[in-house]
Amino acid sequence: MIKDLNEIFKSYESFIGTEVTIQGWIRNHRKQKDFGFIDLNDGTCFETLQVVYGNNLDEFDDIQKMHIGSAISATGKIVASPKEGQKIEMELLSIVLEGDCPEDFPIQPKRHTREFLREQAYLRPRTNLFGAVFRVRSIAAYAIHKYFQDNGFVYFHAPLITASDCEGAGEMFQVTTLPIDKINEEVDYSKDFFGKMANLTVSGQLEAETFAMAYKKVYTFGPTFRAENSNTKTHASEFWMIEPEMAFCDLEGDMDIMEDMLKYVVKYVLDHAPSEMDFFDKFVENGLKDKLNKLINSNFVRIDHKDVITILKEANVKWEFAPEYGEDIAKEHEKYITEYFGGPVFIKNWPKDIKAFYMKQNDDNETVAAVDLEVPGAGELIGGSQREENYEKLVARMKEMNIEPESMDWYLNLRRYGGCVHSGFGMGFERLLIYLTGVDNIRDVIPYPRTPKNCEY
Amino acid sequence: MIKDLNEIFKSYESFIGTEVTIQGWIRNHRKQKDFGFIDLNDGTCFETLQVVYGNNLDEFDDIQKMHIGSAISATGKIVASPKEGQKIEMELLSIVLEGDCPEDFPIQPKRHTREFLREQAYLRPRTNLFGAVFRVRSIAAYAIHKYFQDNGFVYFHAPLITASDCEGAGEMFQVTTLPIDKINEEVDYSKDFFGKMANLTVSGQLEAETFAMAYKKVYTFGPTFRAENSNTKTHASEFWMIEPEMAFCDLEGDMDIMEDMLKYVVKYVLDHAPSEMDFFDKFVENGLKDKLNKLINSNFVRIDHKDVITILKEANVKWEFAPEYGEDIAKEHEKYITEYFGGPVFIKNWPKDIKAFYMKQNDDNETVAAVDLEVPGAGELIGGSQREENYEKLVARMKEMNIEPESMDWYLNLRRYGGCVHSGFGMGFERLLIYLTGVDNIRDVIPYPRTPKNCEY
Repeated sequence: MIKDLNEIFKSYESFIGTEVTIQGWIRNHRKQKDFGFIDLNDGTCFETLQVVYGNNLDEFDDIQKMHIGSAISATGKIVASPKEGQKIEMELLSIVLEGDCPEDFPIQPKRHTREFLREQAYLRPRTNLFGAVFRVRSIAAYAIHKYFQDNGFVYFHAPLITASDCEGAGEMFQVTTLPIDKINEEVDYSKDFFGKMANLTVSGQLEAETFAMAYKKVYTFGPTFRAENSNTKTHASEFWMIEPEMAFCDLEGDMDIMEDMLKYVVKYVLDHAPSEMDFFDKFVENGLKDKLNKLINSNFVRIDHKDVITILKEANVKWEFAPEYGEDIAKEHEKYITEYFGGPVFIKNWPKDIKAFYMKQNDDNETVAAVDLEVPGAGELIGGSQREENYEKLVARMKEMNIEPESMDWYLNLRRYGGCVHSGFGMGFERLLIYLTGVDNIRDVIPYPRTPKNCEY
Repeated sequence: MIKDLNEIFKSYESFIGTEVTIQGWIRNHRKQKDFGFIDLNDGTCFETLQVVYGNNLDEFDDIQKMHIGSAISATGKIVASPKEGQKIEMELLSIVLEGDCPEDFPIQPKRHTREFLREQAYLRPRTNLFGAVFRVRSIAAYAIHKYFQDNGFVYFHAPLITASDCEGAGEMFQVTTLPIDKINEEVDYSKDFFGKMANLTVSGQLEAETFAMAYKKVYTFGPTFRAENSNTKTHASEFWMIEPEMAFCDLEGDMDIMEDMLKYVVKYVLDHAPSEMDFFDKFVENGLKDKLNKLINSNFVRIDHKDVITILKEANVKWEFAPEYGEDIAKEHEKYITEYFGGPVFIKNWPKDIKAFYMKQNDDNETVAAVDLEVPGAGELIGGSQREENYEKLVARMKEMNIEPESMDWYLNLRRYGGCVHSGFGMGFERLLIYLTGVDNIRDVIPYPRTPKNCEY
């Protein structure tokens, strides 16, 4: 009977004494004169199964020649293991070599640097570290869907190719079927595929708002793109975003959902990937699980931007960037403020001049109802805002910021056709994964990362 | 107490006699001299709640002026409804106009053509038809995630921007930050963002195979792109695909999963969107629910391509395209064969010359282990294959088809480094939605469709 390893480990006691077949890959192979041990992983869980074989088997000599990385089908009896730290092992009865693997296979049972493994991106999920990272990526993605679906949100697929560049959230990639030339002359976009200039989206928010005005609660979860020429640990040209949008919801309600969602997703991952999280806790970020459990059990602080500036100014710290009312805050400030409060902090009501045109203008005429969630050890994890629902105020703000209202009549019309108080937020999925795993480079939490001058596979 | 309508309808009996507030939009408003009826929809379900008000309310005159499309908060008592076909209604106590809507609001309570609504894409989810379509889209997407996650598949995010054009599945969009010109001269791609020519992916399959060799069972669910200049009901330039990939799985196992997955998703949607499916059954495709229930309860036929050709040749039908051994089959053939068997049909073992290079070559040297699932009323819904795991055979086939093996060394290496029998398939998400809803134009199942010369929002 062919079984997946995750099934067997989940209820290992019921398998003791039974004969099963496992199909997977040899992670390690230790050979003695009269017996040997194969660590078999089939990809369905983090754990490997130790397969014990002896020279009583006819194929003993052939088995001893089997290489690390090879695909095998191993049939044997599951027995209680005498080895400490492992509940069960397999006494091998027969084995089939499904696919050999030469000895120059790059992934050997030793420590490889992450930089080396990045060069072998298509093989790295076969390691403990990346096997865990991309399983957690899958589980976290599902947790996000489950949270929103269980709470009545409609999943909205925002368009990826877009002709509108309104948010100004970042540099865009152009999408074309025209021949490309290095000389910039007059281009006749009427001859391009869409009959106009088209780009890859930087955010699905504005389109999500249109659906929020029909379904009340919607969320996107899809790829977004930035053509910024920055080579940092946290920038990628292609990444996935979650952008919920809620009608009849103000900034306080927005924060309620952010907090509830984040706690849910963190708890779901801790519950559903215990081995992976133990591994990260032990080998990637000491204290990771404590950090995450603390987040689940904390009440997130809510504080105005100006009060944060006051705290920063009064702090007995020599800042690299002096904190100032009306200005953005730096990484060092984010760090200080989460440590100051000992937990996650919502910083709200930001100076309007450093925020986007669509954010709700507060009565003070200086701030907007925007919020950033800062978490210990990661800084900004989520950004959101109440959206300006007043047609005239929105038009005036667009003009101030040199955005042509005519180019966005559909967006403005949402304020004319049964508009209401509404809010939303955006969470970068990879930023969440960095926080969840402790793996600190965005290139290591995306299967095939795209960055400047890098587009392999 | 603010409540969502779906909560109230779900356990309406427990709400009778209680006072609640509903926030949503006026779908219809019928006024009499001394009373009136508002049909209120809040987007959380298909149903509207009838709100009854009388001239005992101080605000009676103001309420009577409220327009269709306006956003309101209505507070009142839920009571059993005397009207046939509706269980409950609300006796209004007070109302707040959250956002007015002018009388020229394009969505009025009358029949609009789908063509007209396509021009108002950002408002169409506020209609019964599109409200139902995009809710079913969300539910079906979740059902797909749930099926694969519950069955131990890892969700894999394939890259969208890609430098490899190997599948040859379709025309590609180019992605660039270079200036674009209409003259095609020598282009120095080393100066482009990724340092080489980059395109939008047409399929994540090849990359998914790399993860299947680590996790055994993976699936993609993400956008794919085709720059084909075709204006048909079934072609879009941007659409979502599901591409599962399984190691240690042959063509029979592949079909098992296709059949199991499809039945699960269809049943999930019928169970979780009963009102929407009733609506489609009544107003879009008569017999839709019977069709879907029949699929759930059928055993899918499995038949070789050559036997299908024999049946077609022996049929007493005057074909527009004559069926022929070794050739593709036409829409009319697909239709005939599903009617012949009275249900879904897997057509397998296709002539190798009309299929892709990566498909497993059968021993007859004429066919490959490919399969298409044909369903009654929709034709091909899923296509899959066992993948060629033999390195030499794969290289030979690539050369025959003028694909440079050097350009795909990573893909070939999967056959060297512990390769094994493996299979996968691809399902166009919109094709599934067309099948599920009876809505027959792909432009009507995508929130913001992209087609040649069309890229609005």
